[in-house]
Amino acid sequence: MSGLVSLVGAGPGDPDLLTRKAVRRLAEADLVLYDALISPEALELAPRARRFYVGKRAGRPHVSQETIHRMMIRSSRRGLRVVRLKGGDPFVLGRGGEEALALVAAGVPFEVVPGISSAVAAPALAGIPVTHRGLSAAFAVVSGHAESAWRPVLESLAPNALTLVVLMGLGQREPLARLLLDRGWAARTPAAVVWAASRPESSSWRGTLAQLVSAVPESETADAPGTIIIGEVVSLAAALAPAVEPELAAAGGSR
Amino acid sequence: MSGLVSLVGAGPGDPDLLTRKAVRRLAEADLVLYDALISPEALELAPRARRFYVGKRAGRPHVSQETIHRMMIRSSRRGLRVVRLKGGDPFVLGRGGEEALALVAAGVPFEVVPGISSAVAAPALAGIPVTHRGLSAAFAVVSGHAESAWRPVLESLAPNALTLVVLMGLGQREPLARLLLDRGWAARTPAAVVWAASRPESSSWRGTLAQLVSAVPESETADAPGTIIIGEVVSLAAALAPAVEPELAAAGGSR
Repeated sequence: MSGLVSLVGAGPGDPDLLTRKAVRRLAEADLVLYDALISPEALELAPRARRFYVGKRAGRPHVSQETIHRMMIRSSRRGLRVVRLKGGDPFVLGRGGEEALALVAAGVPFEVVPGISSAVAAPALAGIPVTHRGLSAAFAVVSGHAESAWRPVLESLAPNALTLVVLMGLGQREPLARLLLDRGWAARTPAAVVWAASRPESSSWRGTLAQLVSAVPESETADAPGTIIIGEVVSLAAALAPAVEPELAAAGGSR
Repeated sequence: MSGLVSLVGAGPGDPDLLTRKAVRRLAEADLVLYDALISPEALELAPRARRFYVGKRAGRPHVSQETIHRMMIRSSRRGLRVVRLKGGDPFVLGRGGEEALALVAAGVPFEVVPGISSAVAAPALAGIPVTHRGLSAAFAVVSGHAESAWRPVLESLAPNALTLVVLMGLGQREPLARLLLDRGWAARTPAAVVWAASRPESSSWRGTLAQLVSAVPESETADAPGTIIIGEVVSLAAALAPAVEPELAAAGGSR
């Protein structure tokens, strides 16, 4: 009998934002394969499990995708309960679909346990609703990791027609913002960056699309997880951020 | 001293997809104001609380938005701990931003507790990753409730450039699909409808964008919560849905 493989979303980082189902799967797990940005507290919820770090961060050696597939399949065939713990939601920008297909191809039973994506939680925790009556009835979530992926998407969007959320795009924010400006997005469009959403070290920056090119603190942009939000809804943070980020506000507000 | 108001996302319906923080806030709550589509099991997690239904469903009388604001503010000023329990995520298409602004204006302390949005979970639980390498690097989430909201958004998107997720759009799926076809989206673009995602009564339909106009079972579309997904990623459900929806598959597969 093969053991179940659970593709589990860990949410944006705060272990309090794990779902009840994720907590139960961790408690039962024999093996946890976890990504970068998974909190130590989340791993401690799997006391019985062997835990392997299989994350990828820019420019560092990492376990290959094929190795991750092999570890899940082999362990399941040995009857182990495997949790593949992924940041955010397993099916939002993170090769969860590829992992699921590999499990199907191997005939291994698996399930998907959705998690809270930073695409929505990072703006929310900075006081930014991605939709708001009269400002935006829609939002788009784009991977900012590789220009070959984001360029055709951004070129397909009419200027200022919806809220734009870019994940993994801090390193490319300059060409990305320039492309939007070239395509006619208003330079004064409110924009924000949220680092490490839901974590104690969380911080945020707010300005305009034009300022996104040059005015975001450089030191923050190297390797930190960050979410970029562009659109009129960012203006709501002026009222909402001090209320939802009281510690940040007390410590001097957003950067 | 005012009590804290928590704007809490209840996720797509399965009480197992509540976050740990949502569960704790419910346990501590004195008053719970809840929407349509909140499960009875979620409400049972608030045994101390008075619970008021304040949901809106199409065409039925409902508590006004202003009344919801007033109830939250008054109860908080009496020192009560209030949970405003909303389906999905509080800041995705559901006037959460308006409620937050009303609380700020009244000087009432509040917090946002993100929840899992059906925009991602409904496709995932039907075997559809909203992004997938080589198929889609982005997705857009659109409110299908009012044509005045969705029409300008859909007119702003280039055909077939990203995955499209429409929430609350079942009633308008015909004009919505026709608009996309008129704008050049391929008629054979894979499309799916997921009803009651994550609930025991969940079901799904898969076909093409062209079929979305006419072939979706009529009986399902009246008042059920439903998510429409349009894009190449829907094709992955052919492989993934039987694995992630074993009960559905055993009962005869998707409709």
